[in-house]
Amino acid sequence: MTSDNVNRFTHFDPDGRPHMVDVSDKPFSARTAVAEVLVRMHRETRRAVEARAVAKGDVLGVAELAGIMAAKRTAELIPLCHPIPLSKVSLESEWLDIEDPDGACLRICATVKTTHQTGVEMEALTAVSVAALTVYDMCKAFDKAMAIQSTRLLHKSGGRSGTYDASAT
Amino acid sequence: MTSDNVNRFTHFDPDGRPHMVDVSDKPFSARTAVAEVLVRMHRETRRAVEARAVAKGDVLGVAELAGIMAAKRTAELIPLCHPIPLSKVSLESEWLDIEDPDGACLRICATVKTTHQTGVEMEALTAVSVAALTVYDMCKAFDKAMAIQSTRLLHKSGGRSGTYDASAT
Amino acid sequence: MTSDNVNRFTHFDPDGRPHMVDVSDKPFSARTAVAEVLVRMHRETRRAVEARAVAKGDVLGVAELAGIMAAKRTAELIPLCHPIPLSKVSLESEWLDIEDPDGACLRICATVKTTHQTGVEMEALTAVSVAALTVYDMCKAFDKAMAIQSTRLLHKSGGRSGTYDASAT
Amino acid sequence: MTSDNVNRFTHFDPDGRPHMVDVSDKPFSARTAVAEVLVRMHRETRRAVEARAVAKGDVLGVAELAGIMAAKRTAELIPLCHPIPLSKVSLESEWLDIEDPDGACLRICATVKTTHQTGVEMEALTAVSVAALTVYDMCKAFDKAMAIQSTRLLHKSGGRSGTYDASAT
Amino acid sequence: MTSDNVNRFTHFDPDGRPHMVDVSDKPFSARTAVAEVLVRMHRETRRAVEARAVAKGDVLGVAELAGIMAAKRTAELIPLCHPIPLSKVSLESEWLDIEDPDGACLRICATVKTTHQTGVEMEALTAVSVAALTVYDMCKAFDKAMAIQSTRLLHKSGGRSGTYDASAT
Amino acid sequence: MTSDNVNRFTHFDPDGRPHMVDVSDKPFSARTAVAEVLVRMHRETRRAVEARAVAKGDVLGVAELAGIMAAKRTAELIPLCHPIPLSKVSLESEWLDIEDPDGACLRICATVKTTHQTGVEMEALTAVSVAALTVYDMCKAFDKAMAIQSTRLLHKSGGRSGTYDASAT
Repeated sequence: MTSDNVNRFTHFDPDGRPHMVDVSDKPFSARTAVAEVLVRMHRETRRAVEARAVAKGDVLGVAELAGIMAAKRTAELIPLCHPIPLSKVSLESEWLDIEDPDGACLRICATVKTTHQTGVEMEALTAVSVAALTVYDMCKAFDKAMAIQSTRLLHKSGGRSGTYDASAT
Repeated sequence: MTSDNVNRFTHFDPDGRPHMVDVSDKPFSARTAVAEVLVRMHRETRRAVEARAVAKGDVLGVAELAGIMAAKRTAELIPLCHPIPLSKVSLESEWLDIEDPDGACLRICATVKTTHQTGVEMEALTAVSVAALTVYDMCKAFDKAMAIQSTRLLHKSGGRSGTYDASAT
Repeated sequence: MTSDNVNRFTHFDPDGRPHMVDVSDKPFSARTAVAEVLVRMHRETRRAVEARAVAKGDVLGVAELAGIMAAKRTAELIPLCHPIPLSKVSLESEWLDIEDPDGACLRICATVKTTHQTGVEMEALTAVSVAALTVYDMCKAFDKAMAIQSTRLLHKSGGRSGTYDASAT
Repeated sequence: MTSDNVNRFTHFDPDGRPHMVDVSDKPFSARTAVAEVLVRMHRETRRAVEARAVAKGDVLGVAELAGIMAAKRTAELIPLCHPIPLSKVSLESEWLDIEDPDGACLRICATVKTTHQTGVEMEALTAVSVAALTVYDMCKAFDKAMAIQSTRLLHKSGGRSGTYDASAT
Repeated sequence: MTSDNVNRFTHFDPDGRPHMVDVSDKPFSARTAVAEVLVRMHRETRRAVEARAVAKGDVLGVAELAGIMAAKRTAELIPLCHPIPLSKVSLESEWLDIEDPDGACLRICATVKTTHQTGVEMEALTAVSVAALTVYDMCKAFDKAMAIQSTRLLHKSGGRSGTYDASAT
Repeated sequence: MTSDNVNRFTHFDPDGRPHMVDVSDKPFSARTAVAEVLVRMHRETRRAVEARAVAKGDVLGVAELAGIMAAKRTAELIPLCHPIPLSKVSLESEWLDIEDPDGACLRICATVKTTHQTGVEMEALTAVSVAALTVYDMCKAFDKAMAIQSTRLLHKSGGRSGTYDASAT
């Protein structure tokens, strides 16, 4: 590893102490981040979730709401995250087509925006993580083997480091 | 889906309303849950994390601590989780051997215990999720493609539904 | 006022200092509380809420969930409330029949249980209050005159002071 | 209901999913909101509260402080509220003259200000709601029939939707 | 340092990882802790605080209430503290006689009780610390040199390690 | 006390009610605050802490992180503090040389920055207080007599009241 990379651990000061980095000289600018999470489950679990969705009481609706609320708590959870106002949080869930006849895959995607001195990647990732945990919580009574997969950043824009788009998987 | 499965959505009442289920008739008993998360990253990122660990200021130490603190906030994050006292929370991180010469894989494992009327699966899963998000936060400056993989329950014991152990992957 | 009544301000010590009262000698027992809130709004607002309920994205579902989550935060909000584990929280909403042709009235009811040394009246009242505020938040764009009415305790049971049932209004 | 009204449910996206609406294009501007709550109680309860107020240990002082602190937690409680900095929060309580010889009525009023992209109506309403709940908590030992009445917005100004003043009741 | 002492760092596991220690085998028992803090300030500041206390709006009352509320948040603030129900929290303030004619000294004392598997020393210390910070906040406009002194545990009882009483200073 | 001083209790309105003061007319400006805390302990305790620091699992690292996280919660703890975004939080610990052969003294210093309408003195003081409490928590098993000393503001700059530097002690 080059010394350059060590320096890019911006969350540590030169003596190696973790700190919340100083962003006071950064301009206020519009920033967006999009993250996704995949939740793998038994096909039967998917069927149960979909059956709920047609009745009142919707697993995905509860999960999306939990994700929105979690985005607002990000700075309390992630030790070195800056507490910042958020100007938008939204989550969307969809079922992916997969080949495994016994499996199912739910994709939850979060979009977060701010006009501030730091980005909102962690807010988007926290939102999808908590949404996925909420799906797990609601379905765990009949599918403990459910697994949260591939929580990742899809996109960020705004700020000094520019735009990032994840490569297709 | 059988009607039996719909009924196993214990987080919904008969009218489909989400609720925090009544556990007041359940006995207080010792319960344990273990969860793990895998974080995939570039090998170079792993080297940077390990370089930090030998200096003061340790990425994994910060992440493990964030996981412990998050376990205590689980009921605030997961809408239908019961708020309960916890009698133990611990996290451990280790690097897995993987074949990909350009990749690296960090495994973070959480063990949570309580003596209460409900289990602590969600607390263990929340702990590893937030620990993994914290690793991402600290390394995102040079590896935005890092992905959190396979967050899942490894083990639970105690309570009416008995012991569960995840199958090997 | 009799001196007896002054003494019943259990939240103050003999010198008049507010404190969280000592319940350490009280037995652990099963306790239940039920509270309700009425939200008055324009009939047109009710129609809009009901139109939403048939589509995905349900005002009352969001409000009920907010109420459940708020019940768990009661001790953070009400200064002298004891932090206690809760064994059940559920909310239900229904439209009341009223005579005013231009008005509508939503009733939200919360039931909370614990097995502990203090009661859960404040948890039930906090749940319905936050649920009602959430309804207001979601409808305020077209009905700022909406008013939250008659937040009150309907029932409590368990504990030394026994059972209370509100009189019919 | 006209389709126009459905669209004014700004807290739902076109697919009906609840979201925290995007305010990133809104200008930062000074905003104020004022809300009130009425708490109905027995006259004897009022006398007890007033007796406390002359001694050290003041029911209304505790309630006002709880309201200030709750205003700061609004975005944690109301799912789709934006987390924003607040530039002022104040609460005032007063006894209203009412005709009922056996009753008494306490009015608590909150004023909240911000210079931000969204308004603070929910912060003002949350402040008075929690203040009223705190009064209830402190007096419930001798007046369980106390009821919180008519929580409502009195005034808002600033922002695109302009000024709103509640009509007299 | 003897190896025995290293082992008494119960907040670290044998590999040196911080963890929330396992108390699941400890019996539930009644526990009490008392802590105090001294706040040194200019005599003129004391006079101002006392002048306020006779009017409505009492610096010490606000500080004591903040301390009570902080005690309930201890496990969120102190990383390895167990979240536990509290059965009593009370704070008392008094002015100490000191020799310095230009100085004044406020003593704030907190008593916390629980019936649980761990003690409440940290809750008592957190309560007095936040109460003292609140005094500082309210008086800082005219006495920035105010200092919080000698935050310490006065007493603990209950639990395996028995009773501790601080020596007189 | 002069009436001028009473007026400088800006946290009270003219009627003596505590409130969160209106800062909406203040300009946004860069502000910094630095606070310190001294923790007195037995020399043997210091040796144990230092022994830990060379192994993985570092008392001071945990305490510094707890301080960073606490700075972000200041407005939840201190009743009349404004909730504001923070642009930097860092903590540093060092051992002071003292004459007492049986004693040791740890100094923890916090620097906090914002670009906002109010200062961050309370955030810096809260950070060092919680860091010191965390040291106490981790060492209390073998040094209950440890005392937190002299929590105080060292420096503030920015804002209308200008720069303040504590005198040397």
